[in-house]
Amino acid sequence: MASKSLNQRIILTGDRPTGPLHLGHYVGSLANRVRLQNEQDATTGKHRYKPYILIADMQALTDNAETPEVISENLLNVAIDYLAAGIDPSLSTIFIQSEIPEISELTMYFLNLLTLNQIERNPTVKEEIRTKGFEGRIPAGFFIYPVSQAADILAFRADLVPVGADQIPMIEDTNMIARKFNQTYKCEVLKECEGLVPREHARLIGTDGKAKMSKSLGNAIYLKDEGDELWNKVRQMYTDPDHIKVEDPGKIEGNVVFTYLDAFAPTDKRSYVVAMQDHYKRGGLGDMKVKKFLFEILEAEFAEIHKRRREFAKDPAEVMKILKRGSQEARSVVQATLAEVKKAMGIKYFH
Amino acid sequence: MASKSLNQRIILTGDRPTGPLHLGHYVGSLANRVRLQNEQDATTGKHRYKPYILIADMQALTDNAETPEVISENLLNVAIDYLAAGIDPSLSTIFIQSEIPEISELTMYFLNLLTLNQIERNPTVKEEIRTKGFEGRIPAGFFIYPVSQAADILAFRADLVPVGADQIPMIEDTNMIARKFNQTYKCEVLKECEGLVPREHARLIGTDGKAKMSKSLGNAIYLKDEGDELWNKVRQMYTDPDHIKVEDPGKIEGNVVFTYLDAFAPTDKRSYVVAMQDHYKRGGLGDMKVKKFLFEILEAEFAEIHKRRREFAKDPAEVMKILKRGSQEARSVVQATLAEVKKAMGIKYFH
Repeated sequence: MASKSLNQRIILTGDRPTGPLHLGHYVGSLANRVRLQNEQDATTGKHRYKPYILIADMQALTDNAETPEVISENLLNVAIDYLAAGIDPSLSTIFIQSEIPEISELTMYFLNLLTLNQIERNPTVKEEIRTKGFEGRIPAGFFIYPVSQAADILAFRADLVPVGADQIPMIEDTNMIARKFNQTYKCEVLKECEGLVPREHARLIGTDGKAKMSKSLGNAIYLKDEGDELWNKVRQMYTDPDHIKVEDPGKIEGNVVFTYLDAFAPTDKRSYVVAMQDHYKRGGLGDMKVKKFLFEILEAEFAEIHKRRREFAKDPAEVMKILKRGSQEARSVVQATLAEVKKAMGIKYFH
Repeated sequence: MASKSLNQRIILTGDRPTGPLHLGHYVGSLANRVRLQNEQDATTGKHRYKPYILIADMQALTDNAETPEVISENLLNVAIDYLAAGIDPSLSTIFIQSEIPEISELTMYFLNLLTLNQIERNPTVKEEIRTKGFEGRIPAGFFIYPVSQAADILAFRADLVPVGADQIPMIEDTNMIARKFNQTYKCEVLKECEGLVPREHARLIGTDGKAKMSKSLGNAIYLKDEGDELWNKVRQMYTDPDHIKVEDPGKIEGNVVFTYLDAFAPTDKRSYVVAMQDHYKRGGLGDMKVKKFLFEILEAEFAEIHKRRREFAKDPAEVMKILKRGSQEARSVVQATLAEVKKAMGIKYFH
């Protein structure tokens, strides 16, 4: 199993298992995780990073308490998506949050270190409360999830946490807790982390062209979509509503098909994409033709992922074994952190 | 060790280990716990109750996060007070909250079932926030402690929870969570409990006559106080400030010495106490004489407790062993509850 070697920087990342992963996840984080996982030092050949990948089932419950089956149904899917995308369990540790009770304990201890107002101030949480329509009826567990997320990160003494730009306040809250803990208990047990914000372009628009790709908006292409399923989604993509006849000049901006070509076409197809853009703008290039081209690109780009996905999906027991081993390994790391945390607070009664 | 036999009703009770226990604790709860612990069925001879006694170190941290040494220093003292008062570890299970990580997990799951407003509505918490001067700066851990207290209770599927009348809202919150959980997850895993409110008189006034006995007000007589220490506290007790000369008539109402005589004089001294009251009211009975009488009563009433206390204090390792065994036993009960709770939510991925 993957154990951390000297000088490796620890990465903590993960997802709520509330649905299968989609191309937005792939572009925004998954591809980057695989890249980081595989990055090796040019001189020594050693892997630079030790990634821990959290399947956050407990966090998912904070706003799915009444439909927990959503989580148990998707947990395996998310794990298969990881493995299909190239996450290698001999390099990255995939684990399940609820299998690490010590994270709950850490959360309880950290909750004493900040005030309700400090949690409330977090703009990410404010925005989520608004979009989820929770105002006045905020589940307590949801409200405090930034603290449990801080516990996820601090439990592994992570160096790097890949986040979207909108999640920077979460990193700030986490580091505030780390500092407050170390100051209060006069120790160096917890470690501040750094947010790794991806390059631009990382937020993939949904197939409807209206908002970023998301399961709940029904505008997602899943990693598992291939063949007819994939084609049906590409076929229905939002293009230029004023591009009615083939000979009409069309717009590229806001045209989802061209946005995806931009995101997914490999280098050797780039010049062809530019030629298509010009043709489309001039008029004379039909939507269906561009869509077919995009479909072929997606099928080719994700061929290996789809193949691996089919294989892992055939052997769920093996995937669960990977999750079990990963969870055991992650747990031993967190147990060590918790032991130091409790010792710093003087909670060590038995020897 | 104490294991629950058929038909025994489960009692959950406990204290925050923030100071040694005092006579207020004794009158208000400890004496009652010992009584319940020893109560036997007249026919079968079986003990009616199975008490679990929680030393709530994690809850104590919610408003002592910056001074955790207060808790570790007092934990042993509280355990010794229990044993001295007559808590018998073969009948009652004494355990330490932080030794049961499953309580933290239960708390995390329960937090998803109620809203911030529902927690805020609890008048006990409101009042505590006011008296502790927390307004605007409420530690998040303190704010949610009713949920962690509910987890303490529900973890043991307690039938009875001895509480002060002011804590009835805590019982109501606990039962709300039990109902909400069972409804949401269509199960009967959690059990509603009943608050056991003690008879009147159970709130002992402090030695200053101003407020109920409390460590923080400096008006407490501790279970461990005997000899000179006890006498000094009795000597300084608040009596009737207008009773200046011995021959002056004195007031009994609000006179702490007479209040304590009322609370602690044994039956065979009752008529003598009544005679003293009359004498004091008429005039001619000096405060010192009454105080000496009270001191003798307290020394006699608590002689056995003091003796046991001295013995246990000599062998802290033995006391810690009792706590360790109790915590192990309590933990296995809570583990069983958590397993059912998680199963009801569908969180059972490995077999």
